[in-house]
Amino acid sequence: MRRTVFFVSDGTGITSETLGHALMTQFEKTSYRQRTLPFVDSPEKARSTVEIINETGREDGVRPIVFVTSVNPTCQKILLGCQAFVTDFFSTFIPDMENELAVSSTQSRGRSHAIADGRSYYFRIDAVNFALQHDDGASIHHYEDADLILIGVSRSGKTPTCLYLAMQFGVRAANYPLTSEDGDMSALPTTLRRYRDRLYGLTSLPERLHQIRSERRPGSVYASLKQCRLEVREVEALFRLERIMALNSTYMSVEEIASRILHDRGMERHSF
Amino acid sequence: MRRTVFFVSDGTGITSETLGHALMTQFEKTSYRQRTLPFVDSPEKARSTVEIINETGREDGVRPIVFVTSVNPTCQKILLGCQAFVTDFFSTFIPDMENELAVSSTQSRGRSHAIADGRSYYFRIDAVNFALQHDDGASIHHYEDADLILIGVSRSGKTPTCLYLAMQFGVRAANYPLTSEDGDMSALPTTLRRYRDRLYGLTSLPERLHQIRSERRPGSVYASLKQCRLEVREVEALFRLERIMALNSTYMSVEEIASRILHDRGMERHSF
Repeated sequence: MRRTVFFVSDGTGITSETLGHALMTQFEKTSYRQRTLPFVDSPEKARSTVEIINETGREDGVRPIVFVTSVNPTCQKILLGCQAFVTDFFSTFIPDMENELAVSSTQSRGRSHAIADGRSYYFRIDAVNFALQHDDGASIHHYEDADLILIGVSRSGKTPTCLYLAMQFGVRAANYPLTSEDGDMSALPTTLRRYRDRLYGLTSLPERLHQIRSERRPGSVYASLKQCRLEVREVEALFRLERIMALNSTYMSVEEIASRILHDRGMERHSF
Repeated sequence: MRRTVFFVSDGTGITSETLGHALMTQFEKTSYRQRTLPFVDSPEKARSTVEIINETGREDGVRPIVFVTSVNPTCQKILLGCQAFVTDFFSTFIPDMENELAVSSTQSRGRSHAIADGRSYYFRIDAVNFALQHDDGASIHHYEDADLILIGVSRSGKTPTCLYLAMQFGVRAANYPLTSEDGDMSALPTTLRRYRDRLYGLTSLPERLHQIRSERRPGSVYASLKQCRLEVREVEALFRLERIMALNSTYMSVEEIASRILHDRGMERHSF
């Protein structure tokens, strides 16, 4: 039996996906097909969305699971009429919140992923540009503007983590690769010494590094398990010696690495 | 009166922030202070979290607003005892879902932002690397592997959109700048012609481009309103002539641009 999960929204659909996904991951994976229907922002679109959902239910032979984030009362009402198991996020929580905050909600669609506040939005885009300009030690100018400088061996997850920190949290993160090609990893590179209060280390299991590097440069010294073991040993010794906070990123997602770093360093997260 | 909003989670806190933020943006902005407390995954941490919340409420003189995504029943119970207006995401929806799916939830913490499925996770990281390698026309190799190629004038939002498409949706997006420095914008660059089925155009208001470019290169020809007007006019004419789908990104967030593009092109979104 195939069953379909719909994420329906009057905006981008990202909130609906995030919340629906969080709930679905609480159940053991069975064969759910996922489909997002964003920008359902008129009664006409709501009606055709209901048709799609109902038709899918008939094809599947089981009623779909539908997660809705819609604030328009007319659209909401039409959507709730579909033949499905519907979870409506806003109508579940908004009435109690209106009561608590003693004001009515604005019922404005798609607010959470729109440019609600221009200043904080461009702040985030600036952080993305900062991460790009300071990726992989490309530029060490403006390190004084960095909130954080990630250091670690090649392929330990520095680049995606910096980009995620910028995109999700508006944190300006640079990253600098520690390599033992230049021989000496027994001390911090001179460039980094004056910014040691902003350093955070990433390390990884040598076996996993070997696997990732082998996909990029199969058979190279760079990718060899021996080299990966050597680099990890050296880098971890350096982190201990210099008392640099560090984590092993091997089994962690970018979200987990980024959140853990901010938590460890007591840094503010800007949520947008 | 200052009031504090807490996002509490046994994992990264990202789902809690997404939920709370989506709900709070439905109310006109007043002076809420936001604080995320992630990785609350033991009874001890739950108890100290309750203390922080209660203490904050006493300082503020008004009970805090608390969004909780915790699946551990013991932690949940402790957290629900705080002196605050609490919205508990999982306990609100999970019972009905267990009923509908006719199975019990796994009560595993932090699932939605962990590496639940290694294959889809590395697929997403690969997409980020693809976006970086094919940013700003840097490399035109492997365009045949691109799901999408964004084209547009400088500073129309191509780079952050490609990175977001990769990070959030696992879409492999390259981007290629259209400039009139090389004179002729009356036809598609030869490089792009064979990939026209994957092209999507971004355009922007000349006034906004002028503003952004002036921050980077004040007083330059590149940043002048005249130059911005010329480029936008030429690029929009090209999009029309070549019938390339395009949108004006001026007042849109990266999330909106990315979602709109996938929607316009009927592309699949991978939600993680």
